[in-house]
Amino acid sequence: MKILKNRNPSVPGFKATGQCCGIKDKNIKDLALIVSEVPATAAAVFTKNRVVSPGVTWSRRALAKSGSCRAVIINSGNANTVTGPKGLKDCDEITKKVADELGIPQKEVFIASTGIIGVPLPSEKIIKATPNLIKKLGGKAKNWTDASEAIMTTDLVSKSDRVSYSFKGKNIVIGGITKGSGMIHPNMATMLGFLFTDAVIDSKTLKMALKEAIDRSFNRITVDGDNSTNDCVAILANGKAKNSAIKPNTPAYREFLKALTKLSKNLASRIVLDGEGATKFVTVRVQRGKTRKQAYLIANSVATSSLVKTALFGEDPNWGRIFCAVGNAGAHFNPEKVDIFLNKNLLLKNGNPTHLPQKKLEKAMKQHEIDITIDLKCGNEWEEVFTCDLSYDYVKINAEYTT
Amino acid sequence: MKILKNRNPSVPGFKATGQCCGIKDKNIKDLALIVSEVPATAAAVFTKNRVVSPGVTWSRRALAKSGSCRAVIINSGNANTVTGPKGLKDCDEITKKVADELGIPQKEVFIASTGIIGVPLPSEKIIKATPNLIKKLGGKAKNWTDASEAIMTTDLVSKSDRVSYSFKGKNIVIGGITKGSGMIHPNMATMLGFLFTDAVIDSKTLKMALKEAIDRSFNRITVDGDNSTNDCVAILANGKAKNSAIKPNTPAYREFLKALTKLSKNLASRIVLDGEGATKFVTVRVQRGKTRKQAYLIANSVATSSLVKTALFGEDPNWGRIFCAVGNAGAHFNPEKVDIFLNKNLLLKNGNPTHLPQKKLEKAMKQHEIDITIDLKCGNEWEEVFTCDLSYDYVKINAEYTT
Repeated sequence: MKILKNRNPSVPGFKATGQCCGIKDKNIKDLALIVSEVPATAAAVFTKNRVVSPGVTWSRRALAKSGSCRAVIINSGNANTVTGPKGLKDCDEITKKVADELGIPQKEVFIASTGIIGVPLPSEKIIKATPNLIKKLGGKAKNWTDASEAIMTTDLVSKSDRVSYSFKGKNIVIGGITKGSGMIHPNMATMLGFLFTDAVIDSKTLKMALKEAIDRSFNRITVDGDNSTNDCVAILANGKAKNSAIKPNTPAYREFLKALTKLSKNLASRIVLDGEGATKFVTVRVQRGKTRKQAYLIANSVATSSLVKTALFGEDPNWGRIFCAVGNAGAHFNPEKVDIFLNKNLLLKNGNPTHLPQKKLEKAMKQHEIDITIDLKCGNEWEEVFTCDLSYDYVKINAEYTT
Repeated sequence: MKILKNRNPSVPGFKATGQCCGIKDKNIKDLALIVSEVPATAAAVFTKNRVVSPGVTWSRRALAKSGSCRAVIINSGNANTVTGPKGLKDCDEITKKVADELGIPQKEVFIASTGIIGVPLPSEKIIKATPNLIKKLGGKAKNWTDASEAIMTTDLVSKSDRVSYSFKGKNIVIGGITKGSGMIHPNMATMLGFLFTDAVIDSKTLKMALKEAIDRSFNRITVDGDNSTNDCVAILANGKAKNSAIKPNTPAYREFLKALTKLSKNLASRIVLDGEGATKFVTVRVQRGKTRKQAYLIANSVATSSLVKTALFGEDPNWGRIFCAVGNAGAHFNPEKVDIFLNKNLLLKNGNPTHLPQKKLEKAMKQHEIDITIDLKCGNEWEEVFTCDLSYDYVKINAEYTT
C-alpha cells in the first residue's frame, strides 16, 4: 500500500504539544494543545449526527460568538458524549482553565474529544495536566508529532501534512493533523481534523473555503458508513503571512482553496489508508453526471456497499456488484449508457459486459490502489468518494473494541 | 439460535417440483417450477434497483397484461442480469416453452432468476429440462422441498412455511417458499419469495394485501444493506377455497392480511437467520414515533450500522453505537427523550445512560435473539427492522464468492 509519509505540519506562529494525562492507560498520549501566538480567525464544520458531544455544542457556540480562536484542546480516550449535564460542565471547566492559564478569553478556546461514548470525562485529569501542557508547547516537528499522536484512538498511525504556496510575493503555509479510522463517513464521522494557516483571511471567507475543501475531501471518505457524535474539522488563520486579505471570488481565494483542498484530501486519504482493517485504497469516481448530487449518490452507493468492499478485499473483479450498487443509489440514470472501469480496464460498456480476460482483471485487482470509474455520459459533473475494502480485521477490531 | 422448522408449504390446487438442469455443478438443484391447476390471480412486488434482470422486466410486463399467472419458473446459479439483449430473449424462449408444454398462455408464466450477474444464461439447459420438470410436478411435501431447494444460492437451508385460518366456514391456506441470504435489504434484495393461496381474491386486492404484508416483513429485513437486481415476491391465488371473494376494507381482508403478514414475517425471518455468517437474530423496534417514516429511518439506521452489527457479533453491550446510529438516521427526534432497551434492560433513559451492571448486559448480549427497542416518546407509530450481526464469516463468504 502506498504510504503517505507524514510531513511536519508546523505553521508560523502556532505551537503544539501532546502528552499523557491519564485518560488512557499509562504513558499513552491522550491530550493535545495547539495555540496561536496571536489572535486567529477561525471556522469549523461539525458532525451532522443529531446526537452530539457537549464538546461540539460548546465549540460551536464559542465560535459563533467570537469567529476567532487562540487555542485548541483535544483529548482522546473518552468522547465525553452521552454523559449527562456533567458533559457540558466539563467543557466549561476545561476551557476556562486553558483560557486562564494562557491569559486569553474563554470563548477563544476550542475543545474536542474522541473515544468511548457514555463514560463521564475525567476532566480533573485534563485540568491538572494543563499547566504542564502549556509549558511544553513548541513549534518543532517533535511538538506537532506529540499533538498528532495524542488525538489517536484506533488509528494505527498519526497523520499530519503541510502545503505551502506563494502568491504575490507572500509565502502561505497550511498545516494540519487529523485522526480517524473506524466510523468514517461523510459529514465528519469520528474524525477530527485541525488545520492551521498563516494566511490573512476573515472568518467568513475561511468558512467558505473550508466547506468547499471538505466537500472534496473529508466529506468524501467512507470506511463503514457511520457518522459519529463528535466529529469536526476546524481551521485557524493567524495572519502571520501578512498577505493582502483573501476575499471570495478572487484569484487569491482560488489559490488558497486549491492548497487547502490538496491538504484536506491528503489528510482524508490518510484516514482511509488507516481504515480499520483496510488493505486497499479505493477511489470511486463518477464522471459525466448530470448533477453533482446524482454523481455523489452513485459514488457513495458503490463506496459503501459491503458487497463491493468484500469483493475488493477478496480481489474479485466483480463488476456485477459494482453495477448493482450503481443501480441502488436512488439516483436517475440510463443503465444502457453506463461504462464502468476498473483502473484502466473497461468492464462494462453501455451497460453490457466487455468480457475482458479474467486473468487481466485479477491482476488489476491485486493493486493496492483501485480506481473504480463510472461514466454516466449524461453531463459534466463529477464526484469522487474515497474508501477501503472490508476485511476480516474490520470485523475483528470492531467486535473487540469495547465500551 | 432459534431454528424455525420448515413447514410443508403445499396449498390445494398447486403443484411444485425442482431439479438439476446443469446450470450449477452436477446434481445440485437449480430449476424450480410451480403450477396452479386452475387459472390464478396474481400480484408481485419487484426490486427498486434501477439495474434489473430481464426476468423482472419480462414478469412485470406479463403480469401487468394478464393480472393472472398459472406457472412460475425459477432458476438459481445464474441471475440472467447484465447479459445484453440475449437476456430478454432467453426469458421469452423459456416462458414460451413452459407455456407450450403446459398448454397455457405465455403471459401467464412468471420467470425469475437468481445467482451470478453478467454471465449469459444457458437457457437451452432450462428448455431441455422443462418437459421432465413438468412430469415431476406434484403436491407432496417432497415436491415442495425440491422446489425450495432449487432456488437456493448461498443459502445454507431451504425456507418454506404455511399458515391457514378459517373464515365464515371456509378454510384458507397460504404457503410460501423463499430464498436469500446475502444482499438482503428492504425493497427486495437478492431475495425471491413465492406465495400461494387457495383464497378467492381479485388481483388488485391481492396486490394491496401483498404490499401491506411486505412492508411489515420482506421490506423490513436487512443483512448487508444492498439491494439486488432480481428480487421479487409474488403471490398466486387460485380460488380453490371457494370463499366469498375478499374485498378491501372488510373483515375478510383483515383476516387474510393478518395471515399473509404472519407468513411473510416468518419467511423473512428465516432469511435473516440464514444471513451470511449470522450468529444472532436482531429485532430493532422503534416505538412511539411521530410518523412511520421517522420510526423506519431510525430502525433502519441502527439495523444497518456496521458498528452496531459488529458489536452484536462481539457481544458487546455498546449502547453508544446504537444511540449514535439513532442520531445518524437523518430523522428528527429529541435526543433527551430517547429510551433504549436491550431485551428488557433499560440502557438509556431520556438520553442518559442508566449504568446497569456490565455483567447483566453481557449476559443479555449472549442471547441468540436480541431485541433493541428505541422509544422516541413523541407519537404512536412504530416500525420493526429485522437484521443479524456482522461476523468474520460474512466477510469470508463475500470475499470468496466469485463472479
